[in-house]
Amino acid sequence: MVGQLQDAQVTVVGLGLMGGSLAAALRGQCRAVTGVARRAATVDAALARGLVDRATTDLADGVSGADVVVLATPVRTILSQIAQIGLLLPDGCLLMDLGSTKAEIVDAMARLPGHVQPLGGHPMCGKERSGLESADPALYRDCTFVLCPLPRTSEAALALANQLVAAIGAHLLLLEPQRHDSLMATASHLPYLLACALVATAGAAASADPAVCRLLASGFRDTSRLADSDATMMLDILLTNRLEVLKAVDSFRSLIDAMRRLLETADGEAVRAALSAIRTERVRMLP
Amino acid sequence: MVGQLQDAQVTVVGLGLMGGSLAAALRGQCRAVTGVARRAATVDAALARGLVDRATTDLADGVSGADVVVLATPVRTILSQIAQIGLLLPDGCLLMDLGSTKAEIVDAMARLPGHVQPLGGHPMCGKERSGLESADPALYRDCTFVLCPLPRTSEAALALANQLVAAIGAHLLLLEPQRHDSLMATASHLPYLLACALVATAGAAASADPAVCRLLASGFRDTSRLADSDATMMLDILLTNRLEVLKAVDSFRSLIDAMRRLLETADGEAVRAALSAIRTERVRMLP
Repeated sequence: MVGQLQDAQVTVVGLGLMGGSLAAALRGQCRAVTGVARRAATVDAALARGLVDRATTDLADGVSGADVVVLATPVRTILSQIAQIGLLLPDGCLLMDLGSTKAEIVDAMARLPGHVQPLGGHPMCGKERSGLESADPALYRDCTFVLCPLPRTSEAALALANQLVAAIGAHLLLLEPQRHDSLMATASHLPYLLACALVATAGAAASADPAVCRLLASGFRDTSRLADSDATMMLDILLTNRLEVLKAVDSFRSLIDAMRRLLETADGEAVRAALSAIRTERVRMLP
Repeated sequence: MVGQLQDAQVTVVGLGLMGGSLAAALRGQCRAVTGVARRAATVDAALARGLVDRATTDLADGVSGADVVVLATPVRTILSQIAQIGLLLPDGCLLMDLGSTKAEIVDAMARLPGHVQPLGGHPMCGKERSGLESADPALYRDCTFVLCPLPRTSEAALALANQLVAAIGAHLLLLEPQRHDSLMATASHLPYLLACALVATAGAAASADPAVCRLLASGFRDTSRLADSDATMMLDILLTNRLEVLKAVDSFRSLIDAMRRLLETADGEAVRAALSAIRTERVRMLP
């Protein structure tokens, strides 16, 4: 395994928003960046925009000679790629991913052949619009980048990944995969489901009275924004973190029910105290 | 009653974000704009920033000689101001408000003395930050401005209000007060409560594992943004629209429960179809 990122050939598999941005951020900071995409048009676009040194639709060709391979596809695609990529990877190759859930992915990584150095990853960034056309080398700057080492992950592999995280301007956070998934269910997957259920509620109201659409302002737009996320990406996340997401929904339900009961009492001072405490809590959590 | 807005003396009662922005947008489009604020410091700031021609802390002084008076205070303050302002208002004066709920306000307006022309109003705009320091003459541009005429509201009064709405760049929407409140419960008050309950859920998760705060990214920030709204303003809205808000929460609950059940089945195609339909619905509602 190479010791320095600048000597590494890095292959990014999947050239959407996350993969395209990672390739662009790494270019010039390592020996060479190769991109692998499913569609020839994406390969051409990545080359035309100068996001990669080389690009191909062929996975075996793309990972040949790679020191680092990063899987930047939807979670269930990552799972099937892990199952097939092992024998294609050079000896000592670091295999990372950018998937939004980690327990199933790290479990699959544990079954990789012994010559591969696996490491789960999840950078906490994104954008409203997906796809290579939204790729941005600054996407990772100042974001938290979670790494989930396996018991078999070597110190050298983790050190090389740390260099990669630093090179793109992100901040490292080490977490166990199960803990990551449990926390993400509350921090990200629950907000997505709330946004979806809010849109469904407004849709039901609009069926009864279409005028509701004229009253949707910036508050509704922001609260429901996550419902505009890519459905395939979110489906994979929900299915691979189902039990933790169900727990987070249950926790939310008990809290919205408590707020409903409080409002039902019409006790103004109690409602005010609850709303003020929540506002303070949010400022504390999001300084 | 004056026929033209440019001949009208307009008094804005309450110089926060909404009132300050309205005064600034109207200045130069009517004979004079007077501001009324509770605190002398606000009066001084409004004069210093040139948002009003004249300002005072004295309500009787502020409305003397007014052709149009606009109440721009929190909803329950509007209700008590309506109860005391009638005898202070000049003959034929148009009394409007900017309150976010309308049924209780229009009910209170119906009890005003006969020489006053009352008209409920609700402009669908706002900003993350409240207060005069955030006032912006462009705040109302392109927003929907709901007007709720009473049976006693004259055509001349409504025509003058239409001129005011047009002068600040807003679009008129006439609605019955009860219908307004029912629609707003879904479009605005429910999103606020969801944001609050989401923050409370994350707060509970943070008590168990503070690392959750390091995983809060832009999705959580946007979905929870409304929880940072002014607590007094929101308390008044919730208390004066309690039954409609409870109905909206119940509708939301049945839809989040349906999504929870769907996820529990782990039927990928069914979940994908639901998420895709919701995404399409949102694009349709928020073009």
